Formats: sequence, C-alpha cells, structure tokens
Amino acid sequence: MIIIGERINSSRKPIAQAILSNNARFIQNEAKAQAKAGINYIDVNAGSFVGEEAKRLRWLIEVVQDVTDDPLCIDSADPEVIKSVLPMVRIAPMINSITLEPYRLEGVLPLVSEYRCKVIALCQSETSMAKTTEEKVRIACQLVEKVTGSGVPLDDLYIDPLVYPVATHTEFALSTLDAIEQIMKQFPGVHSTCGLTNISYGLPNRRIVNRTFLVAAIARGLDSAIIDPTDTRLYGSLKAALMLVGKDKFCLEYLTAFREGRLGS
Amino acid sequence: MIIIGERINSSRKPIAQAILSNNARFIQNEAKAQAKAGINYIDVNAGSFVGEEAKRLRWLIEVVQDVTDDPLCIDSADPEVIKSVLPMVRIAPMINSITLEPYRLEGVLPLVSEYRCKVIALCQSETSMAKTTEEKVRIACQLVEKVTGSGVPLDDLYIDPLVYPVATHTEFALSTLDAIEQIMKQFPGVHSTCGLTNISYGLPNRRIVNRTFLVAAIARGLDSAIIDPTDTRLYGSLKAALMLVGKDKFCLEYLTAFREGRLGS
Repeated sequence: MIIIGERINSSRKPIAQAILSNNARFIQNEAKAQAKAGINYIDVNAGSFVGEEAKRLRWLIEVVQDVTDDPLCIDSADPEVIKSVLPMVRIAPMINSITLEPYRLEGVLPLVSEYRCKVIALCQSETSMAKTTEEKVRIACQLVEKVTGSGVPLDDLYIDPLVYPVATHTEFALSTLDAIEQIMKQFPGVHSTCGLTNISYGLPNRRIVNRTFLVAAIARGLDSAIIDPTDTRLYGSLKAALMLVGKDKFCLEYLTAFREGRLGS
Repeated sequence: MIIIGERINSSRKPIAQAILSNNARFIQNEAKAQAKAGINYIDVNAGSFVGEEAKRLRWLIEVVQDVTDDPLCIDSADPEVIKSVLPMVRIAPMINSITLEPYRLEGVLPLVSEYRCKVIALCQSETSMAKTTEEKVRIACQLVEKVTGSGVPLDDLYIDPLVYPVATHTEFALSTLDAIEQIMKQFPGVHSTCGLTNISYGLPNRRIVNRTFLVAAIARGLDSAIIDPTDTRLYGSLKAALMLVGKDKFCLEYLTAFREGRLGS
C-alpha cells in the first residue's frame, strides 16, 4: 500500500498562510509529523497561488527536502509548473496528476519517463469527469493505453477513479468502489489511488465516512491512498484493513503500529 | 441489512450470572439497550448450561418477550432445545443455527417450515469447519440445496461462512471475504451473515479489527451481521458502510443515527 500524505496542500488555510509568510518551520513540522505517522510520499501543492504557483512550489519543495528523505508527490494541474520544479527534486517523485486532456498528457508523460516518476492519472477526459462505473473504467482503459504506449511501465501508473460526495447521489460511492475492483482486475499490475475527503462532503461526522470509505475501497482492491496519516483512527482503519485483506503477514505491521500508538482507539 | 444483537449470550459472564440468579431485570435491560440501539433480531443463548439449556432458554425468552416486540434469534446447537422453546415464541424468529450435520439439518429444517422462521446455516459439514474460500462456497452450495429442497424459501436462508482469527493465519479474513462475495453472486436472493469477534482473537485493539472487518464484509456483499449494537463506533461504521454501498437512500439512516447520537466519534 502506497500512502501519500495530503497535509501540505495550499487549499488548507494554515498551509496557505505558512507559504505566504515563508514560515518554513510550520511546513517542516507538517512534513515531519507525516513522516513519523507513516507514509511513502509527501504531497506538496501550491495550486491556490495562481500566477506564482511554480515559485511557491519550489519554496515548498526546498523546505520539505531539508527535513525528510521521504520522496515527494508533486501536486499540480499545470505541466509547466511540474516541469520547472522537477530538476530540484532529489528522489524520484510521484506526479499528481495527469488526465486524458491532451495538454496534460503531452506535457507530463515525457517528464514521467525522463525522471522515472510514478504518476497519478485521474479518470477525467477533455469533456467530462467520470461519474458512473462504466465511464470510470472506460477512461481508465484509455489512460492505461496512453501511459504505457508512451513507454511508462504499468507499475508506475496510479489510476484515481475520482470520488464524489455520497450525499449528492446515493450511487456515487458505489460507482467508485465498483470501478476500483474492475480496473484492478482488468489491468493486473496497475495501481489505484484516491483522496477520501470528497466522499463525505455535506455530511456530519465526516471522519467516520472517510475512514469507512477507505476500508471499503481496500476491500475492493485499492492499493494506494492520499490521506492525512496523523488522523490515528483513519490510520488504524487502514492498518486493520490491510491486515484483513491478507497484505500484512503475521499481522506484523498492525502490531508495530499498535506498539507505537498509531492505531487510534 | 438484518442486524442481530448478540449480547444476551450465556458465554458472556454477566449474562450467565444473571441467568443463574434469575436476574430478569439485568437481561431485560440488555434487551432494551439493544432494541434502542437499533436491531432486527435479539439473539438469546443459554448454551453454556449443559443439561438444562432448554429450561434456561425458556426463562430467557419469557423475560425478553416481556419487554420488547423485536423478534428473537433462537441460538442453540441442539435441535431438541430449539423444538422445545419454539411454541412459546410470539413472533416468527430466526433460528441460529444449522450445519450440514444430518441431526441438525433433519432436526431443525421441519421446524423452520412449521414456524416460518428464518435460519442461519454455518459452513460446517460433518467432518470439517470450512476454512478456505473453496470449502466455504462448496458447503454453502450444499446448504442451499438442502434448505431450499426442504421447501424453505431462499430468502429465509442466512449463510454464515465462519470467521477465524486473522492472527492465526494471514489468509483467514480474506477467505471469508472472498466466500461472502462468491456466495452472494452465485445464489441471488440468499443472505449472508456472521459474527465478528473471532476475527480479532489474539490481537490488541480488537474493536478496531472487528469494525474494520464488518465494513470490508459489507463492501463484499454481506447483508446481515451478528453484532453488539451498543458499541457506537461499530454501529457508526455499519451505518456509514451501508450508505457507501448504496443501501441508504439520501443518507437518511446515517443522518438519523447521527441525530440520535448512535454513530460514535
């Protein structure tokens, strides 16, 4: 399971303020807390700074790399921004994200090859963001073709089927869960990932919904997630779920997380 | 989702003591607490009183029926005990349980027909308790044949694939999850149920493991469970999971449980 820590994202107010005020220590504490909680990649996003995203993202990367050797997940919708920061990234990162939109595909895929990155691909075409299971699987199929066709190994591709609020439509969660299962079965070797917070938009007790969705998705085959690893109940659900789908031999990871107080209650 | 409240079971010490001392009020409080938390059936079990199980179970049934109109789940491995108590049960109950063992099949199936009960059937043959997915599905298949062959509608059959501790064998949880999915796909209209507590035997933080397993099982098709409904975090996971698999239109049940403080935190 590849875990991407989501906290250093400029859409979160405290992060945007820290970026604006060049508060490196605040950002570094966020990086260290996530590294300690247990992750594989640290997401860095400065997307809310329109016009100066590249500059702000470069600062974020520098600041985060100063305190951790965990690889980064470079999070931007702009291929030019991604291209401008990659030379300063020390360890092969993940890129978040591409879609079927040509400017993103053509702008990012050569960089994925050049820097030997992993890449997250959203189930989104030029004209639509996939909502039904059929749409999600159809776009995933095209993404697999385009990405592997450009020479990127299937093992480096993380398909994000997109998550919409279940409060908006009763079927929205199930369409993503079904898509995860179908995509993982149809393309052995590919990976799947997603963020969780959209699922609970508009509902009370959002954390219960988020962690329940994560477990359900893992039970259907999800093998990566973009989460807040410092939410211990979420992290406990994650570790228990991996154990229950047979991905934690002798329960060693679960027991280690328990001993280190990382399971919640 | 059919929820069976598991608390009134003589294998639990306080229940055994209450039965021994004819403490009706204690048992009735357990019944009322479960009814309030939200269940469809109340399990009643006096199996630990060898030699006087029937007498103790009759007392339990009388005491519970005095305070609730929720139907009962008559929980005994002994067909004679089940036969002796059924005449006093006011509302068509569930019977827990039969197996492929002939004395249980032949002893109980006529009662299921006569009293129009629902029945839980364990994936257990004369010679073995099913551990692998293949065994579970094979025995489930035989159970479906035997039960429907005796004239009981498929809709009244709840197959329990059996749950073993994941700490004993890394594959034990997954074999049950896979069996649930296969059984529900192979026999449209049949139901599946299980208890949760075995899964976490030998591990710390058992409640996390239990509720995570419940969510994973619902994500794979489980449509009934034998649980402690007064465990609010478990109940919250249950309600969120049902919402996420599309079984809670407009999130109404989730929102109601939230307003009534039944979701946990």
